[in-house]
Amino acid sequence: MDLTQGRSYLAIPGPSVMPEAVLRAMHRAAPNIYEGELIDLTYGLIPDLKMVAGTRHHVAIYIGNGHAAWEAALANVISRGEKVLVPASGRFGYGWSEIAEGLGAQTQIIDFGRQSPIDSERVADALAADTGHEIKAVLAVHVDTSTSARSDIAALRKAMDAVGHPALLMVDCIASLGCDRFEMDAWGVDVMVAASQKGLMVPPGLGFVFFNDKAAAVRESMPRVSRYWDWTPRANPEFYYQLFCGTAPTHHIYGLRAALDMIKAEGLEHIWARHEILARAIWAAVEAWGQDGPMRLNMADPAHRSHAVTSLHLGAPHGTVLRRWTQDQAGLTLGIGLGMSTDADPAGDGYFRFGHMGHVNAQMILGLLATVQSGLVALSIPHGPGGIEAASAVIAGA
Amino acid sequence: MDLTQGRSYLAIPGPSVMPEAVLRAMHRAAPNIYEGELIDLTYGLIPDLKMVAGTRHHVAIYIGNGHAAWEAALANVISRGEKVLVPASGRFGYGWSEIAEGLGAQTQIIDFGRQSPIDSERVADALAADTGHEIKAVLAVHVDTSTSARSDIAALRKAMDAVGHPALLMVDCIASLGCDRFEMDAWGVDVMVAASQKGLMVPPGLGFVFFNDKAAAVRESMPRVSRYWDWTPRANPEFYYQLFCGTAPTHHIYGLRAALDMIKAEGLEHIWARHEILARAIWAAVEAWGQDGPMRLNMADPAHRSHAVTSLHLGAPHGTVLRRWTQDQAGLTLGIGLGMSTDADPAGDGYFRFGHMGHVNAQMILGLLATVQSGLVALSIPHGPGGIEAASAVIAGA
Amino acid sequence: MDLTQGRSYLAIPGPSVMPEAVLRAMHRAAPNIYEGELIDLTYGLIPDLKMVAGTRHHVAIYIGNGHAAWEAALANVISRGEKVLVPASGRFGYGWSEIAEGLGAQTQIIDFGRQSPIDSERVADALAADTGHEIKAVLAVHVDTSTSARSDIAALRKAMDAVGHPALLMVDCIASLGCDRFEMDAWGVDVMVAASQKGLMVPPGLGFVFFNDKAAAVRESMPRVSRYWDWTPRANPEFYYQLFCGTAPTHHIYGLRAALDMIKAEGLEHIWARHEILARAIWAAVEAWGQDGPMRLNMADPAHRSHAVTSLHLGAPHGTVLRRWTQDQAGLTLGIGLGMSTDADPAGDGYFRFGHMGHVNAQMILGLLATVQSGLVALSIPHGPGGIEAASAVIAGA
Amino acid sequence: MDLTQGRSYLAIPGPSVMPEAVLRAMHRAAPNIYEGELIDLTYGLIPDLKMVAGTRHHVAIYIGNGHAAWEAALANVISRGEKVLVPASGRFGYGWSEIAEGLGAQTQIIDFGRQSPIDSERVADALAADTGHEIKAVLAVHVDTSTSARSDIAALRKAMDAVGHPALLMVDCIASLGCDRFEMDAWGVDVMVAASQKGLMVPPGLGFVFFNDKAAAVRESMPRVSRYWDWTPRANPEFYYQLFCGTAPTHHIYGLRAALDMIKAEGLEHIWARHEILARAIWAAVEAWGQDGPMRLNMADPAHRSHAVTSLHLGAPHGTVLRRWTQDQAGLTLGIGLGMSTDADPAGDGYFRFGHMGHVNAQMILGLLATVQSGLVALSIPHGPGGIEAASAVIAGA
Repeated sequence: MDLTQGRSYLAIPGPSVMPEAVLRAMHRAAPNIYEGELIDLTYGLIPDLKMVAGTRHHVAIYIGNGHAAWEAALANVISRGEKVLVPASGRFGYGWSEIAEGLGAQTQIIDFGRQSPIDSERVADALAADTGHEIKAVLAVHVDTSTSARSDIAALRKAMDAVGHPALLMVDCIASLGCDRFEMDAWGVDVMVAASQKGLMVPPGLGFVFFNDKAAAVRESMPRVSRYWDWTPRANPEFYYQLFCGTAPTHHIYGLRAALDMIKAEGLEHIWARHEILARAIWAAVEAWGQDGPMRLNMADPAHRSHAVTSLHLGAPHGTVLRRWTQDQAGLTLGIGLGMSTDADPAGDGYFRFGHMGHVNAQMILGLLATVQSGLVALSIPHGPGGIEAASAVIAGA
Repeated sequence: MDLTQGRSYLAIPGPSVMPEAVLRAMHRAAPNIYEGELIDLTYGLIPDLKMVAGTRHHVAIYIGNGHAAWEAALANVISRGEKVLVPASGRFGYGWSEIAEGLGAQTQIIDFGRQSPIDSERVADALAADTGHEIKAVLAVHVDTSTSARSDIAALRKAMDAVGHPALLMVDCIASLGCDRFEMDAWGVDVMVAASQKGLMVPPGLGFVFFNDKAAAVRESMPRVSRYWDWTPRANPEFYYQLFCGTAPTHHIYGLRAALDMIKAEGLEHIWARHEILARAIWAAVEAWGQDGPMRLNMADPAHRSHAVTSLHLGAPHGTVLRRWTQDQAGLTLGIGLGMSTDADPAGDGYFRFGHMGHVNAQMILGLLATVQSGLVALSIPHGPGGIEAASAVIAGA
Repeated sequence: MDLTQGRSYLAIPGPSVMPEAVLRAMHRAAPNIYEGELIDLTYGLIPDLKMVAGTRHHVAIYIGNGHAAWEAALANVISRGEKVLVPASGRFGYGWSEIAEGLGAQTQIIDFGRQSPIDSERVADALAADTGHEIKAVLAVHVDTSTSARSDIAALRKAMDAVGHPALLMVDCIASLGCDRFEMDAWGVDVMVAASQKGLMVPPGLGFVFFNDKAAAVRESMPRVSRYWDWTPRANPEFYYQLFCGTAPTHHIYGLRAALDMIKAEGLEHIWARHEILARAIWAAVEAWGQDGPMRLNMADPAHRSHAVTSLHLGAPHGTVLRRWTQDQAGLTLGIGLGMSTDADPAGDGYFRFGHMGHVNAQMILGLLATVQSGLVALSIPHGPGGIEAASAVIAGA
Repeated sequence: MDLTQGRSYLAIPGPSVMPEAVLRAMHRAAPNIYEGELIDLTYGLIPDLKMVAGTRHHVAIYIGNGHAAWEAALANVISRGEKVLVPASGRFGYGWSEIAEGLGAQTQIIDFGRQSPIDSERVADALAADTGHEIKAVLAVHVDTSTSARSDIAALRKAMDAVGHPALLMVDCIASLGCDRFEMDAWGVDVMVAASQKGLMVPPGLGFVFFNDKAAAVRESMPRVSRYWDWTPRANPEFYYQLFCGTAPTHHIYGLRAALDMIKAEGLEHIWARHEILARAIWAAVEAWGQDGPMRLNMADPAHRSHAVTSLHLGAPHGTVLRRWTQDQAGLTLGIGLGMSTDADPAGDGYFRFGHMGHVNAQMILGLLATVQSGLVALSIPHGPGGIEAASAVIAGA
C-alpha cells in the first residue's frame, strides 16, 4: 500500500536536502546588482568559502553546475594539446577527463576500477615515467559519487612530490566538500572544484573553483582563456560585475549566505564528525544485512569509503526494485546506480546509492535505513538481522 | 554527540508536520476580503470540509484553536445553568468540561481513567438516571490526545438512543479528524468540533464546528448566543463578512485549500488506512521493545487506540530523558506526557507521546521508531529486540 | 486594456500589505508548543507589543480577528444587563455595540454621523446625566475604518474625568495601532483592542486586548468570564499553554516577531511621522482633484482624519466604477465604501477607501494616487489638475 | 524624510520584479534529477520557450547568466581566428564582442554611438565589402540595455540577404525577450540568446541559446566545441542528464515553469502590447518634464526605443542624485547609467535607467513616474508640468 503521503525524503547524492533557512533566504525580491546590500553580502561569502575549503588562497564562483566548474578549472590552466593525467576511481573521473578532451587536452587515464580509490604509487609511477614533464595536471576526484570511493589526496600530493613532478594537483570535491575532511592548503592541492548542491546545501546553480598561487601563475602563462571561464577577474575583481562575469546569481547568493551561516554555527570539525558517524551507522546496518543476504557496500575498506555517499550492490534487478519500493510505498527516494553497468546488468539495476550529505541528521538516516529494511522484507530479499540495532549502536555510542 | 543538524522532525500530537504545499500556499500577498477570488475560494472549502467530517449538514469556521472551537460549540447550545454530561477518557475530556463550566454550565463527569475509552453503557446508565432530561448534551472526545484513547462514537450514539435520551451528542474530533475514521451523519453525531493543526495539516489558527439540524434547532431556542460565537450567520451567511464574523483569516484559507486538495487527491479512505497501518507499525515496535523492558503503550487494547497519537509509558524520569535524547542528539521532537502525573511522578516524566497525524508516511514513522530505539540503546534502557523488524513487517505487509 | 500583469497592490484598509520578512518568517515547520524556542520567543513579544501600545500594563493575545478582540475585551468587564455608552463615528462603533448587545449588555449610542469624530463634550454630558453610574464603560473607536474619522482619545479621557464618572474607557485601535499616534497610559485608556492585520503587518488571525490595573480589578469583580475570553491567565500565565488558552498560533507568532522587529528598527515615532506624511500626500492630491470635480475626502477637517485609512466620496456609481477600473486595468485594489449607504445610494457605490497602513512607502502611495488619477481620466470623471504635483510637494518637502 | 518602509520597488533593467508565483514555485524540496516529475516538467519547457522566441527550431538551456549565453552561442559556431561583425548600439554590443575576442575571434565593430540603433545599410555595406566571406557571423543586440536602443532585426536580415552574404545572424534578446516583439523564424534570425532574469521573470541563473538548422550545420562543421558549451546534446539529448551537461538547475526549472505559465495565460501579443503602452506612458511623462528642464530620453526616435528599458539623461550629477533620492526617500530603486561616461562625466552620473520588463503593470509604472517627479521637486531640478497627466492619458486611453 502507498504510504508515501507525508514529507518526502530525497536521499540521492545531490541535490541534497535543502534546509528551510536556505529556501527561505531565497524567497525574496531581487536586489539591486550594482549597488546596495548585495555587494557586501557577496564579498562576505569569500572568506567563508575559503574556510570550508581549507585555503587562504583564491576562489572564483561560477553560475553553473559541477560540470561547469570542471570546465572552468581546466580552461584556466590547460591549453589545447596539453596533457593531463586522470587517476579514475569511478565514473566521475572519466567525466572530468571527457571535459578535458572537449577542451582539446590529451588525457592519460589510470583506471582503478569501480571498487578502489586512487593508488598514489601508481600515479607517482606514471609521473616518474613522464620525464619530459608533459603532464601538466593530475585530475583527481576526492569522492567519486558513482562508486563512493574516497581517495587519499594528501598521500597523492606526497607521492607527486616524491617523484618531483611539477604537475598541478587538481581535485574534484563536488561530492565531499562540507562532508568529508578536506584541507586544500595543508594537503597541497593546487586547484579544487566544488558545487553548491551537495554538502553546501544550496540548490544546484553555483560552481566553485579554488586555486592557489601556483595555479594562478600557470593561468597567467596561458595563451588564451575564455572571458567567461577566466578566473582572474572573478577571484580578484576590480568591480562587482566581474565577480560573476555579468549578472550576479542573486537568489543563490542569499541561499549560500544562509548555508554558510549554518556551517559556521555548527563548525566544520563537527560537521565532518557528524557525517562520519552517520556514515558508520549506514555501514553497520548494511554489513548486518549482508551477513545473510546479497547486499554489499561497494567499497570494502572503510578507510576508502565516502562519508557523504554510499554505493551499494544488491544484484540486478533488486537494486532498482528496492528503490522503487522505497519511493512508491514509503516516501524515500534513493539514488540510482551510476556508472556500474556490466554486460550482465547493462542498466546497472544491481546498484543503488544513498546520499547522506549536508543537511542530514540521525533521525533521517535511521529512517532511511529502517525504510530500506522494510523494503527488503516487503520484497522478500534475504538479509541478516540486526541492521537497525547495529546502526543504533553507532549513533547511541557517538 | 549532537547529530541534529538536518531536517528536524516534529512528532508531537499537534501541530503536525506542515506540508510544503500548505506553507507555499500561505506565502502570498493578502487578498481583498470583500470581493474577488477569496470569496469563491472560501465557499469552496465548505463542501470539502463536510466531506472530511462525513456530514451533509452545517459547518462554522472560527479563527481560533481547539479550545475556541470547544467554547464556540457549547456557546451555541448550552445556556448558563444547563447541564452537560462528560464521559472523560483523558485530560481533554476534563478540558472541555472546564470550558463548559466557564460558560456557566453544570457538568457531570464520568471518569474512565487514563487507560480506557468511554464505556457507552455507563453513559447510557447516567442518561437513564436523568429522568428529567436535564442533561442537554453529552460531550465526548473521540480521541483524547493525552491518553490516546479512542472511543466508539457510533456505539455511544446507539447507547444514548437505546435509553431514549434527547441529549445532543457533541464530539471532539480535534485529534482524530482526517486520521481516524469518523462519520458524523452515519454515526448520529449532532455537533462535532475540530481544528486545523492536526489531521488537516494547516498551522494552528482555525477551529471548526460542524452541526446538524437538531443542533441548529437547539441553538434557535437559546435565549442568547454571543455574536462572535454564533454559528448561524457563519454557517449560513447572507454575505461573506459574516462567515468569519469580521475579517477573514486570509492566509489560513489558502493553506486550508491546499490541504483539502491533498486530502481529496489521496482520498479519505486511503488516508484512514494509511494512518492505521502506520499506527500498527508503531504498536508492533513498542510491543517488541516491551517484551523485555519497561516501555508500554498506554492503551492496552488495539481497538481503543488512536491512529493519530500514541501515549507511551516508560517510567519516570525515562520518558522525559528519552525525549530529550531524541531531540538533542537526533533531531526528533516527541510529545510530552500530558495529564498523566501521579503522586509518584508529579511532572509526568514517565510518559511521552508520538504524534502521527496528517502528513506522515512510512519513512517518517520508521525514522521515528529507529530513533527511539537508538535512544533506548544510548540511555541503556532495557528493551526487547526486534522492534524495527516488527514495524517493518507491518509496513511491508501493507 | 488590461495592464494588471505585474505586482498587485492591495490598498484596502486591512489586511494591509504583508512584508516579505513577515511571510518568510511564517514559512517554516511547526515548532514544539510545549518546550523550546517558541516559548521564549512568545514571551519576548509582550514588551514589544506594550511598547507599540504605549502601556506598561497588560496584554492578552487571542487567536482571532478584530471582532474576537472586541468580544474578548467586553467579556472580561461587562456582564449581562450592564450598560455601555458607545459614541459612534462610523460603522465600527455600531459593530462593537452589536457585539456588546450579543453579550447581553445594554447599549446607549451617541451617533456622531458619518463625517465627524467623537465629540467629547457630548460624551461627558451623557456621563454626567448618568448620576447612578450605571454606565460601566465607554466604547470608543479611535479610527473608524468606515468613515476614516479619527477621534481625540486623550480629550475624551479628560472629559470623562471632568465629570468624575468611573466608567472604563475602552478604545478600539484596530485601524490605528502602529499608524496613528496612540499612547495608552499617557492618555488614560483602560482597555485597548487591536488586531494583527493592519498597522502590525501580520496576516489576519491575532487579536490583542491591552488593559490596565483598573480594568483588571473590574474583571476580578465579574461574576463569570468565559474560559476562552478570560484575559487573566493569558496576560499572566502560570504556564505557556495558558497564554493562548490551548494551542499557540505558531506561525503567526513568528510573523509577529518579524513585524515587531521591523517596527522597532524603524521606531514608533518615525512610523507615525511616515504615516502622517503619506496621509497628507493623499489629502493634497484629493483636494486638488476636488477643486474641479466631485471627489471629496469624507472627513473635512484634517485634524480628524486618520493617517491609516481614507474614506472618499465620488458619487454613485463612480466610487465603485473607479475601483473596478484601478483593479481591472491597473493592478490596484482599493477598499469598498463601507457603512455609507443612503437611500439614494443603497449600495454605497459613491464611496471608496484607501488603506495606507503599515508597510507603505512613498512610491506605493504615489503609485496609488497616479493610478486613481489615470482612472479619473479613463472614466472621464471631472477632476482638478495638479493632484500628483500636490502630493509630490508634500513628499518632497518631508 | 525616509519614507521607504514599505514594499520596495526594484526598477532596474534586470533582474526584474520576481512574481510571487515564481518565487513560490522555487520554494520547495529538491527533486530527483534522474527520474520522476522533473524530467517531464523540464521537457515541457521546451515548446513554451520556443513559442516565446518565435521559433520552431532548437533551444539549449544553460545554467548561467547572459554572458554565459553569449559565450555559449559563440563557442558553437566561431572558431579561433574566425571573424565576426559587431554592429554596436551600446555597451552590450561591445560586451558581446569582448566575449568573442576571448574565444579568439577577430572582431570588426561598427559603432553606431550611444543614441542610435543599428543602421542595417551600414552593416550591409560592411558585408558587401567582405567579398571573401570571412565574416562568419553578425552579432546584433536587439535592445542594448545601456542605451535602450532597439534595432530593427528584420531589416538587418533583409539587408544581409540583399548583399547575399552567408554570415549567421546572431541576436542578443536578453533585454527584449518577452517584452518587445521578436519573431526569430519570421525575421530570419539564426541564433538568439536570452536569459531568465528580465522578461522571463525568473531569478538570474539561466541562459538560453536558440538556433536554427543553418546554425546547427555550422556547429557540425566546427573542429572542436567544448563539452560544456556544446549545444547539440543539450538541445537534442539522448538522456536527461545531457540537457544541462550535468546536474539540472532544479529550482530554477520550477520557477521557469511558473513564469511560462503566466506568459501563456496572458498571451505573448498581450504582453508585447502591455509593455508598449507602459513604455509610452513613461515617454510621455519624460517628454513633459523635458519641456522645461534637463531630462531627456536617451533615444530620440520612439521607433528605436525599447519597450523594456529606458535610458535617461539628466546631467551630472543629477542622474545619480535623483536615483539616491528615490531609493533612500521613497523605496524605489532605479538603474544606474551604464556605458554612458564621458570626459565631462567620467562616472556617468548624468544618466540613469528605468527597467520596465516582465512583471510590470500600470500602478507600478505610475508609481515610478510619480516618485521620479517627487524627486525632481525635492531636488529642485527644473521640469515641465503635466508629466503624470501625460502618462495617465496614455494608460487611460489604452
